[in-house]
Amino acid sequence: MKHLADAHLTIIGTGLMGTSLARALHEKVGALYGVERSPEARKIAALHFDRVTADFSAVADKTDVVILAAPVRAILKMMDMLKQTAKPNTLILDLGSSKRKIVAAFDAFPDHLLAVGGHPMAGREVSGPDNASADLYRHCIFVMCPTQRSTPAALTFVENLIQAIGARPLTLSAARHDRAVAAISHVPYLISAALVSAVARAAGGDSTVWELASTGFRDTSRLAGSDPVMMGDTLLTNREAVIDALALFRQQLEQIEGILLSSDEDQLRAILAVTRQLRLDWFVQWNERQGK
Amino acid sequence: MKHLADAHLTIIGTGLMGTSLARALHEKVGALYGVERSPEARKIAALHFDRVTADFSAVADKTDVVILAAPVRAILKMMDMLKQTAKPNTLILDLGSSKRKIVAAFDAFPDHLLAVGGHPMAGREVSGPDNASADLYRHCIFVMCPTQRSTPAALTFVENLIQAIGARPLTLSAARHDRAVAAISHVPYLISAALVSAVARAAGGDSTVWELASTGFRDTSRLAGSDPVMMGDTLLTNREAVIDALALFRQQLEQIEGILLSSDEDQLRAILAVTRQLRLDWFVQWNERQGK
Repeated sequence: MKHLADAHLTIIGTGLMGTSLARALHEKVGALYGVERSPEARKIAALHFDRVTADFSAVADKTDVVILAAPVRAILKMMDMLKQTAKPNTLILDLGSSKRKIVAAFDAFPDHLLAVGGHPMAGREVSGPDNASADLYRHCIFVMCPTQRSTPAALTFVENLIQAIGARPLTLSAARHDRAVAAISHVPYLISAALVSAVARAAGGDSTVWELASTGFRDTSRLAGSDPVMMGDTLLTNREAVIDALALFRQQLEQIEGILLSSDEDQLRAILAVTRQLRLDWFVQWNERQGK
Repeated sequence: MKHLADAHLTIIGTGLMGTSLARALHEKVGALYGVERSPEARKIAALHFDRVTADFSAVADKTDVVILAAPVRAILKMMDMLKQTAKPNTLILDLGSSKRKIVAAFDAFPDHLLAVGGHPMAGREVSGPDNASADLYRHCIFVMCPTQRSTPAALTFVENLIQAIGARPLTLSAARHDRAVAAISHVPYLISAALVSAVARAAGGDSTVWELASTGFRDTSRLAGSDPVMMGDTLLTNREAVIDALALFRQQLEQIEGILLSSDEDQLRAILAVTRQLRLDWFVQWNERQGK
């Protein structure tokens, strides 16, 4: 493997994630190419890449590392093209938000290619290259999922890349990653969407219900503003883990609701005090990781 | 009724809400008295009031307006004392977060007192006078619930007070208020708490689950950090409306889950796109109200 500073990187997909990565890697790599189908997105991407093309084959021969920055099923669809077009020893890294299907596909890659699964725990509820930022990945956890096509050199390269953009590498199996993100990311999205939908039903024609909503609703509902195409892809490619995590959530909600129905104040306070402490403990640690 | 600038106001309860109100009313009223049982809180409150006492009777004769800044059941408990101690024509306003029980109690007040129910849609997940801010109520909706003891002059006085602290008055019946806050405030709190509890179960002994949690979890779980005593009080005094709103939430979540289970991608995208648009529309209007 080349060193990061000498490597030619091609990012396929120049949306929020891909363009932010390009901005974070600016002047830290040998060359940065972008591959993007949308002509409008190519125009914006041109500011942040050495070259932007509609077709990977135009840069395949110069590319040492390919980074797939797209929804999970779009990544899966790119794989046949990569097997045919990428030159020998090309390292492929993806940024897909569920990992089992992608890692299984990487496991079946031909011997002449290298592959590592990746998922930076960063994002925004807005999308597109206009919202890209060089700081998107700063302080975030960047999950690495080793595959049958991951050599020690390939894993070291990815680790260096992660550190170069200010993120923190964490190696997990695809299954463990998928169960975790179902709980801390996909279920929060679903309850956020269901909340907005429930408020709409509660409001009916009474707009004052929406008017009363303030910072509590703003934060609890923020994820409902995410891109439905991207989220639909994520949920459908992590369906089993999401359904399991939703069952846990429903059980916990029913437990609290049962206590509320019984008007058992001591028990209600006790369970709310436990969740409060868990949340405060997590928040302290999260802030420390952000350098705050 | 005296004008706001001449009136002597007594705030009973000098926690986050009461002390923030005192700071927002600074130099806009004739005098500001605080009533607080906790000696520690009295020390902090002394910086923001003309006088702070442990007992309302010490300032009752000078008081034109009493503001009850406490949990709902604490407010209900203060009422007998007020009926006996407040001088004739004293106006009583409360800041309790559910309104039916309080307004029913005000309706039964003796003829020589005036009363208006109130609820500023502002708050923080931290509590106590140390976290008080003169800006807490700025741009917030401040619900007014008229009672049998509300004269036009009393309602005008409260409206002027609300405008003086930079908030926006909105008159609602207690029942309509309670249904609305169940949907936009109490259910968001409960799902936030249930989420934290579900993540703890999903994590079990695996701390990486908590490590992967990022800004999405941070925002969705923020309300779980609220004071469990205050929230227990709020939930138990608005139990029926909360149970109804939870049922709506559960139906909406089950609808989305059913679509996910059937892997119907078009339908999944369609429902997520609708909730996204509802959330974006609300957020635009909310930002406009904040003067952003």
